[in-house]
Amino acid sequence: MSISKKIVFVTGNAKKLEEALQILGTSFPIESKKVDLPELQGDPIDISIEKCKIAAREVGGPVLVEDTCLCFNALKGLPGPYVKWFLDKLEPEGLYKLLDAWEDKSAYALCNFAFSEGPDSEPIVFAGKTDGIIVQPRGPRNFGWDPVFQPDGYKETYAEMDKSIKNTISHRTRSLQKVKEFLKSKGYENCKFE
Amino acid sequence: MSISKKIVFVTGNAKKLEEALQILGTSFPIESKKVDLPELQGDPIDISIEKCKIAAREVGGPVLVEDTCLCFNALKGLPGPYVKWFLDKLEPEGLYKLLDAWEDKSAYALCNFAFSEGPDSEPIVFAGKTDGIIVQPRGPRNFGWDPVFQPDGYKETYAEMDKSIKNTISHRTRSLQKVKEFLKSKGYENCKFE
Repeated sequence: MSISKKIVFVTGNAKKLEEALQILGTSFPIESKKVDLPELQGDPIDISIEKCKIAAREVGGPVLVEDTCLCFNALKGLPGPYVKWFLDKLEPEGLYKLLDAWEDKSAYALCNFAFSEGPDSEPIVFAGKTDGIIVQPRGPRNFGWDPVFQPDGYKETYAEMDKSIKNTISHRTRSLQKVKEFLKSKGYENCKFE
Repeated sequence: MSISKKIVFVTGNAKKLEEALQILGTSFPIESKKVDLPELQGDPIDISIEKCKIAAREVGGPVLVEDTCLCFNALKGLPGPYVKWFLDKLEPEGLYKLLDAWEDKSAYALCNFAFSEGPDSEPIVFAGKTDGIIVQPRGPRNFGWDPVFQPDGYKETYAEMDKSIKNTISHRTRSLQKVKEFLKSKGYENCKFE
């Protein structure tokens, strides 16, 4: 297969690109670009589809966008796509305190990558989900809500885990593995440029 | 003053228009129109400005848009613009339960009307704010989070209050009064069409 344009992973975060490439490998024609996209409210899938459409229009070619949610089952999926605002205002301690009135501390971490071939294509969403529980913050504070999320089957929070272990079970890895299979099936692996 | 286009109040809700006209009076050239606008995340003022810009582009003339937030002080302003999702998932009971871990139950209801003269104008935001506390739900359930919000100086929740009293102190009235003064100052009162 030969293509005329690289897939643009829309992110302003160099670390996110680096981590994504670690999982996807280097055989796909992906580059990153910072594009100001609106952050939308709504159902996580709808948010990803709409954001991907806007990105494809802005870029004028194939794009990947990414969204992450932390969903508390007692709160029926909330704070979900709004977790970054809650983390920002309340710190990890506050995220845990939000569930004080509920016995059910179960939650899931959700990563939705969305891919579109271009402005006229319908985006496809690749959901990666990891179940766990919300705990009092433990571990380093340098990565978002990782200190309050303890994946099922582990005694450590995301923040406490060895990164190599986290990368085998994380919501992000699970989403990116689906992206990888899809891009392979579409012939994007080792493809040439026109 | 004469104008060529009516001010379009972008809302799909006939009741919202009716209530707004009760406060604004009938001397302004306002009509309503349903336009699908994206619901954005972010700071309430930024959300209103951005939404108003999009509305002005879509309508191609003067527009009014409206946003409402319920802001818990213990949660540093959250759920704020996301309150409708929390209400939808958790019912009024759940909104109250969210504050279980915090002693401070104080809150404010916020209404932001935003006005733009057209696609090339910078929107102006008119914030109306009413302070109060979050209580266990009391009163009729037919209007959003009204059962959990008790304004300072009153023993009734918004839902329990006589509507004529609520309308004298509500965040929405306070915002619309600012809109009214502004439109008067701009000569929109009793203006003629070209």
